[in-house]
Amino acid sequence: MVAPADEFALIRRLAATQRAGREDVLLGIGDDGAVLAPASGRHLVAVCDTLVAGRHFPEHTDAFAVGWKALAVNLSDLAAMGANAQWALLALTLPAPDAGWVERFGLGFATLAKMSGVELVGGDTTRGPLSITVTALGSVAAGSALRRDGARAGDRVCIAGVLGEAALGLAAIGQGLRADARFAHCIARLDRPEPQLALGQALHGIASACIDVSDGLLADLGHVAAASAVGIRVELARVPHPPLALAGALGLDAGDVIDLALAGGDDYLLAFTVPAAQLAAAHERLAALALPLVEIGEVRAGCGVEVAGADDSAYDVRRAGYNHFGGDDAQQD
Amino acid sequence: MVAPADEFALIRRLAATQRAGREDVLLGIGDDGAVLAPASGRHLVAVCDTLVAGRHFPEHTDAFAVGWKALAVNLSDLAAMGANAQWALLALTLPAPDAGWVERFGLGFATLAKMSGVELVGGDTTRGPLSITVTALGSVAAGSALRRDGARAGDRVCIAGVLGEAALGLAAIGQGLRADARFAHCIARLDRPEPQLALGQALHGIASACIDVSDGLLADLGHVAAASAVGIRVELARVPHPPLALAGALGLDAGDVIDLALAGGDDYLLAFTVPAAQLAAAHERLAALALPLVEIGEVRAGCGVEVAGADDSAYDVRRAGYNHFGGDDAQQD
Repeated sequence: MVAPADEFALIRRLAATQRAGREDVLLGIGDDGAVLAPASGRHLVAVCDTLVAGRHFPEHTDAFAVGWKALAVNLSDLAAMGANAQWALLALTLPAPDAGWVERFGLGFATLAKMSGVELVGGDTTRGPLSITVTALGSVAAGSALRRDGARAGDRVCIAGVLGEAALGLAAIGQGLRADARFAHCIARLDRPEPQLALGQALHGIASACIDVSDGLLADLGHVAAASAVGIRVELARVPHPPLALAGALGLDAGDVIDLALAGGDDYLLAFTVPAAQLAAAHERLAALALPLVEIGEVRAGCGVEVAGADDSAYDVRRAGYNHFGGDDAQQD
Repeated sequence: MVAPADEFALIRRLAATQRAGREDVLLGIGDDGAVLAPASGRHLVAVCDTLVAGRHFPEHTDAFAVGWKALAVNLSDLAAMGANAQWALLALTLPAPDAGWVERFGLGFATLAKMSGVELVGGDTTRGPLSITVTALGSVAAGSALRRDGARAGDRVCIAGVLGEAALGLAAIGQGLRADARFAHCIARLDRPEPQLALGQALHGIASACIDVSDGLLADLGHVAAASAVGIRVELARVPHPPLALAGALGLDAGDVIDLALAGGDDYLLAFTVPAAQLAAAHERLAALALPLVEIGEVRAGCGVEVAGADDSAYDVRRAGYNHFGGDDAQQD
């Protein structure tokens, strides 16, 4: 019998072996609360996301991936604010004692935490149906947080990576091809997304708005459009997507691949808008991070998101599950 | 059909009507993260606790009480650190759409938030078995956090209230007496505990160690004893407990009432240790808060917690479910 407290002790030990050893953690796990030293001149950024088994990751996902992803989705929110990542609190609800599962979970969480310089400073372990809530805390220079509401007509809409890979990985798993080496990259993008923290911080003074693509490009750009009171036009031919041949191996056609890129969730790339005057600087900063700056569209007067097809005909965004009337309230933080 | 996002929007609206309107919230709910301004010269205190239905509150508890309690247990942890309470993030997992439930839940949460000066700044709403995780953030003057590890031999062990009332309330509910006016006070202590935030802040420079009594007095004093590497002796006759006559109405005898006071959870009072030289100051500060300072025991060299009966005979602490060998790891933050 492994008691919840012992499970947390196990995670704590794993976290300790991997930990960043941050000097701004004055009192970590083990008291009623953590005591942390915010840096002067910076604002705190706080995010909180829950993963529920079967909804946010496939049942029977390896525990390492669950631990990684529970932290990753939160770090991606910090990245979208242009924040660094400093501290995390973990609330883990588990149906039954399983020391092996907890150890793999803790290792996945701790591996990404170490990569990202994050220290686990508190949390809770309870019995119940599997779910994980992580709160992550970071900071930005005062006044420089990236928000959703700063996009202006004429700005370019940009991305720094390929969209739809996580969704293609999920499709491969759905066809029983988890072990197929051809899909290893896409499945890794699904299981172990790498939050674009460095990118977010590089966009200070460059991007006018930013969001992370968790629900799908069109849905998330819809949040930017609504918050900024603008329209966004995406040029289909410019959207980076997985190779058609790879998708073909799953029986998917070109249209399906475009749908994955436009509406597939779980990519955790940043989508951001850049005023024309900042485009050269943006290219320079992303090059320094060895990231591609891909311009996929533009901000216009108006509202909602539209997609222009290759021949400039309108693409039916509803095909990709996007409804811009319902887009405004679909994410609360 | 109420979508999770709509449920969060409902809570957000309720929170807005009740909200503290804190000036240190630069960007609240609605973006990828909240942007908050820590006060200079202060350390951040972060706590996180999960409530699972049927484990941390009786099934069919009124949603107002669930919302209140989900925040209260976290604010009590802040109180135990001597911190004030500033911001909260709420992760709510709900089995099915129920706008009425969510409205009462949000009102309970928001009512305590307003009383405590806390602003809801972020969170998540997901579908799944009912559970609530709250992260609360507050601050203390740099270097002045109350910890568990500062108790020293000779210090007095103190409490400022009556122990066992929440447990007696739970017992009354168990006997179908939720509506019985005689138990209204005890049931309120169970459903709507009032975190001792003002007390915690008044103990700066006074208390050598502090913890909140969530698992039961002996278990929680056990954490202080372990963290401070000392023993604690509680004098049974000094422990404030519910009236014997009230307990008698439930068929409980004097021994049962003592057990509730020593081991009943959910009281959310602070238990703290005070060096002899600070006792007069402690009495003065608590009097200013109209709180009783009740000395219930003393810190000694040694380890673990023992209870001295009325005739100075040892009380069998195991009767009250306390095992000091298992006490060290039973709470992780």
